[in-house]
Amino acid sequence: MIIVMERNAPESQIRQVEQKLQDKGFQVHLSQGVERTIIGAIGERTQAIMEAFETMGGVEKVVPIVQPFKMASREFKSESTVVKVGDGWVGDGSMQVIAGPCAVEGREKFLEVAQMVKDAGATMLRGGAFKPRTSPYSFQGLEEEGLEILAEAKRITGLPVVSEIMDPRMIQMMCDYVDVLQVGARNMQNFFLLRELGKCDKPILLKRGPSATIEEWIMAAEYIISSGNPRVIMCERGIRTFEKYTRNTLDLSAVPVIKQLTHLPVIVDPSHGTGKWKLVEPMALAAVGAGCDGLIVEVHQNPSEALSDGPQSLTPDNFKLMVEKVTRLSAAMN
Amino acid sequence: MIIVMERNAPESQIRQVEQKLQDKGFQVHLSQGVERTIIGAIGERTQAIMEAFETMGGVEKVVPIVQPFKMASREFKSESTVVKVGDGWVGDGSMQVIAGPCAVEGREKFLEVAQMVKDAGATMLRGGAFKPRTSPYSFQGLEEEGLEILAEAKRITGLPVVSEIMDPRMIQMMCDYVDVLQVGARNMQNFFLLRELGKCDKPILLKRGPSATIEEWIMAAEYIISSGNPRVIMCERGIRTFEKYTRNTLDLSAVPVIKQLTHLPVIVDPSHGTGKWKLVEPMALAAVGAGCDGLIVEVHQNPSEALSDGPQSLTPDNFKLMVEKVTRLSAAMN
Amino acid sequence: MIIVMERNAPESQIRQVEQKLQDKGFQVHLSQGVERTIIGAIGERTQAIMEAFETMGGVEKVVPIVQPFKMASREFKSESTVVKVGDGWVGDGSMQVIAGPCAVEGREKFLEVAQMVKDAGATMLRGGAFKPRTSPYSFQGLEEEGLEILAEAKRITGLPVVSEIMDPRMIQMMCDYVDVLQVGARNMQNFFLLRELGKCDKPILLKRGPSATIEEWIMAAEYIISSGNPRVIMCERGIRTFEKYTRNTLDLSAVPVIKQLTHLPVIVDPSHGTGKWKLVEPMALAAVGAGCDGLIVEVHQNPSEALSDGPQSLTPDNFKLMVEKVTRLSAAMN
Amino acid sequence: MIIVMERNAPESQIRQVEQKLQDKGFQVHLSQGVERTIIGAIGERTQAIMEAFETMGGVEKVVPIVQPFKMASREFKSESTVVKVGDGWVGDGSMQVIAGPCAVEGREKFLEVAQMVKDAGATMLRGGAFKPRTSPYSFQGLEEEGLEILAEAKRITGLPVVSEIMDPRMIQMMCDYVDVLQVGARNMQNFFLLRELGKCDKPILLKRGPSATIEEWIMAAEYIISSGNPRVIMCERGIRTFEKYTRNTLDLSAVPVIKQLTHLPVIVDPSHGTGKWKLVEPMALAAVGAGCDGLIVEVHQNPSEALSDGPQSLTPDNFKLMVEKVTRLSAAMN
Repeated sequence: MIIVMERNAPESQIRQVEQKLQDKGFQVHLSQGVERTIIGAIGERTQAIMEAFETMGGVEKVVPIVQPFKMASREFKSESTVVKVGDGWVGDGSMQVIAGPCAVEGREKFLEVAQMVKDAGATMLRGGAFKPRTSPYSFQGLEEEGLEILAEAKRITGLPVVSEIMDPRMIQMMCDYVDVLQVGARNMQNFFLLRELGKCDKPILLKRGPSATIEEWIMAAEYIISSGNPRVIMCERGIRTFEKYTRNTLDLSAVPVIKQLTHLPVIVDPSHGTGKWKLVEPMALAAVGAGCDGLIVEVHQNPSEALSDGPQSLTPDNFKLMVEKVTRLSAAMN
Repeated sequence: MIIVMERNAPESQIRQVEQKLQDKGFQVHLSQGVERTIIGAIGERTQAIMEAFETMGGVEKVVPIVQPFKMASREFKSESTVVKVGDGWVGDGSMQVIAGPCAVEGREKFLEVAQMVKDAGATMLRGGAFKPRTSPYSFQGLEEEGLEILAEAKRITGLPVVSEIMDPRMIQMMCDYVDVLQVGARNMQNFFLLRELGKCDKPILLKRGPSATIEEWIMAAEYIISSGNPRVIMCERGIRTFEKYTRNTLDLSAVPVIKQLTHLPVIVDPSHGTGKWKLVEPMALAAVGAGCDGLIVEVHQNPSEALSDGPQSLTPDNFKLMVEKVTRLSAAMN
Repeated sequence: MIIVMERNAPESQIRQVEQKLQDKGFQVHLSQGVERTIIGAIGERTQAIMEAFETMGGVEKVVPIVQPFKMASREFKSESTVVKVGDGWVGDGSMQVIAGPCAVEGREKFLEVAQMVKDAGATMLRGGAFKPRTSPYSFQGLEEEGLEILAEAKRITGLPVVSEIMDPRMIQMMCDYVDVLQVGARNMQNFFLLRELGKCDKPILLKRGPSATIEEWIMAAEYIISSGNPRVIMCERGIRTFEKYTRNTLDLSAVPVIKQLTHLPVIVDPSHGTGKWKLVEPMALAAVGAGCDGLIVEVHQNPSEALSDGPQSLTPDNFKLMVEKVTRLSAAMN
Repeated sequence: MIIVMERNAPESQIRQVEQKLQDKGFQVHLSQGVERTIIGAIGERTQAIMEAFETMGGVEKVVPIVQPFKMASREFKSESTVVKVGDGWVGDGSMQVIAGPCAVEGREKFLEVAQMVKDAGATMLRGGAFKPRTSPYSFQGLEEEGLEILAEAKRITGLPVVSEIMDPRMIQMMCDYVDVLQVGARNMQNFFLLRELGKCDKPILLKRGPSATIEEWIMAAEYIISSGNPRVIMCERGIRTFEKYTRNTLDLSAVPVIKQLTHLPVIVDPSHGTGKWKLVEPMALAAVGAGCDGLIVEVHQNPSEALSDGPQSLTPDNFKLMVEKVTRLSAAMN
């Protein structure tokens, strides 16, 4: 890190900073200009250490130099991580298409749509059994019954299933039913949950929080990886901005950024990212152009009867058309 | 709610919407213009119902009319809620000042600062035993040992204590030690946690999430209240914007908005709201001007040695000056 | 528009609103529920009229129903607008690639890079003669000398040229030199400028302001079109968000949204949209996937010597690779 | 500035950066760590110079050290600037209250409200003659006729008048009528306008752009000051965020930040900052608490008949109540 001293900070304050740096094991380099002194400090810095210097007398600011994440970074591991899910691989150059309704609403309906999305080209199933809802009066999911339906759909279609985990107490139970545990956007910084997911042996689909910087998102992955589970799949699902025409603003530049800064695979959710089904296909194609490893898309037989997220759900027919175009574009990318 | 049909939507689609509204128990009012039909629907709407209509053929958009929160609203309960904490009251016109370090870092240091803030005029103590940290490599709190120190400080100073709850599994334990359970900004939409806090008998300090709209924040309070606990204190602590000079942008307009829309008390955190101790005093005074019921402020004997949030912590001396000014301004407000 | 009355607003207030609506020529439809009355008003509404009702006694809120733009809307003109520039067309299904340095820095350098981008496949040239710079101490452009160089490059390469207009007093002069006048992001709501551009006979490239909603951006186009110039090309160039890793957040969902709401062509600027040359190619490809009509890209022979925007400029070699991939993807889209 | 080299950047690249720095007149300080080299460069940096280094081989990033503004900074001039307007002073510890309708709508109405706000305690008049409106179909102001009315109101009440300038061509004319020229939020980065205002001899009220960082806002002031006019009054009027309950988010922390970074006076606009008259008084009081030098508030005899911004306008009676509380709080602050 770099410590910038205030203009004309007295020699004594510079010495204090220097001394404290040495006490904490940093190598120190002083650059003394006419008006201002800048101190380069090389060593292991943490947030707390940076803050400690920021509050010392005569210090104007402290500038971090290296990124705070380690195990998730390309510098730490230069080859891309490929995550095995069922018989397939995420991040190996293939285009994964995860599809299904927002919530599992009932056995027959789910088994039907599962078959439909499989026939249309989906490679994994999605469906929520526990639903985080803004209102306590909204449908909250079928809970364990929903997980049983997911497992049955998996047996029938052969497709691996993805479902959201909301509470550390449910990890054990969910691992019995699903192939990939999804961390929802609202839980991206539920650090107790992240740490315990680091101890389980399932791949984790880590959605970006609606106001999380890319750096904070990678730090959430770092929690999981540093706790023992390296099988993290990043998922961009839109950030919160002033624009209200779309539900969120899908930040597709996050795709190449994650690829450059980390070794992790990254997929895109154009359904939550836009909130409008008419925008799902164009943004799915845009995500392919940006270089993603997969898509996660909401599909419902009858969006106007969906218990949640109907407006952003594709019909199975529209989903089929989307998959055809995604496949064509994906081929042109390679 | 109001359903706006597309320009020149055919009669048949209008009939379908009308029929479905009646099936769901709504009273229907049609306004047919030359080019466009608008349908007023009066009844109990939920998010899912709105979405259901949004996806029907011929529908351009669905506009909600009434606010989604009920028990938290002024319409539901017109007199202001006053929350008893220790021997004091939050929301009764008094100015509560909650102070202490970001994290409990050790017994002696905490007992010392607790006495200092009491002498300076604090009415409650704060201190984190479990710390949500962006990095897995940062100090995560003293955990139960920290709670014991808090309880000891309470015995000595007589001040009630506030501390953050991060996981539903710890509610029971924390209730043995603290007077107010704080829900941190990152957990504002941890719905499992909110629901279980609704079943405990302690007041809840509910921080606004960094990207939560005021409506979502009130809905989080609604989760707690509708689960059985009406003792909710709202806390504005800054939202995430493009401005980077301050850590967050303290949205003080939330204070009068909460007062107008709900019956709940609201306090302000100028420490997290700005991230810089030089801004804490002016923003505390601004919060008083905005009409808040209290402040929560980080104070540390030696901010440059703090294990977290040093740059935004006041020294006990600066805190004392702040309390004096707050008291003077508060008197001028009444 | 719809006027929602407050819960239990007295009959007299409802009558006043009704009367005022009729006075202003609106057709009125009352929906009286048990607790609340909703008034549908059909007629020509403006912002001022909406605000007038919003402040009347007993009114809770006024909800607009129809979009405020007219001549730019798909409802007004259903076929897509195609804008002729030189011998080419923007919006006819072709992929336009506009390239060149941020600023015209000198005659020889510009003529050289103009030839390079032409050889690599560019269909138009770009280069700033007047530069809006955050700092008064930064390079502000070669002004009229720069325009002369642009005109010379046009004569030599045969490519049309695009350059930014910053002041209404320069429209006349710039029209003598350039083919397309660009309105920069900072001037998107310079209404005097927009109105005067409505009176000139050149196509206008209208960049989205960094904090403009899609609706405000279309309203800016409406200013130009309603003043007499229908040849408007929209350009998405990123919006300002909390994310700081990229210079802006490129909002690619704006591409399909503009296509759905308006009849205007839309191009994308991945250089300003990201601020980092390593992200330009992936985001250019993403823009093609989103369905844009063209790209505008910064290219410089030697980005580290550029007088502005070096970090986001491609070298001619990298630009050539990008054009090849854009062409391949664009073919797969059709 | 500081140049951070990539991990393991070869010696040759480090030498190139060093050489180029010396060529540009910088003093160079190398800090060579085990894995990474950091280069401190002391000298006059500009945006272009920073970008030049950012694109060189082996450079990871360039970190600015000193703020880009000079003449506006406290470092340049430590005593606070006091701006004379009429017989009063802005920034001398007094509380200026500027009031009047959004737009001058007619002679009699304006003269009437001018007298009313004077009687209630206003120290300056405001009123727009040229109105920047999002829609080309909205009322655009009375133009020169409006200025004549402003001048007449000034003669009658003795209060100085403030009005918005939108185009450099009108500076001369406006200076004949008004005492303070206001730069609106949408024109904060209209650099041609700023430069020409630097050549006129009237005080400039510089509103912050809705998506301008504090640094960009100060740079806009720097344009005016460096062009010759040091009489700049800053005005915070809210920034654009995701929150939609208020029209903008009033960033009151900007008040102490401007006071700390610059020597300029700063006032606050709670009318545009909130968009709702019920929030104007609490936010005006909050602004006083934050330490502002004045307020600018919209007042209209009959807000429901206002041609613009009715919902955020106070009635003269409410304005009078506000001034009384502002005066009381302001006294308690000193």
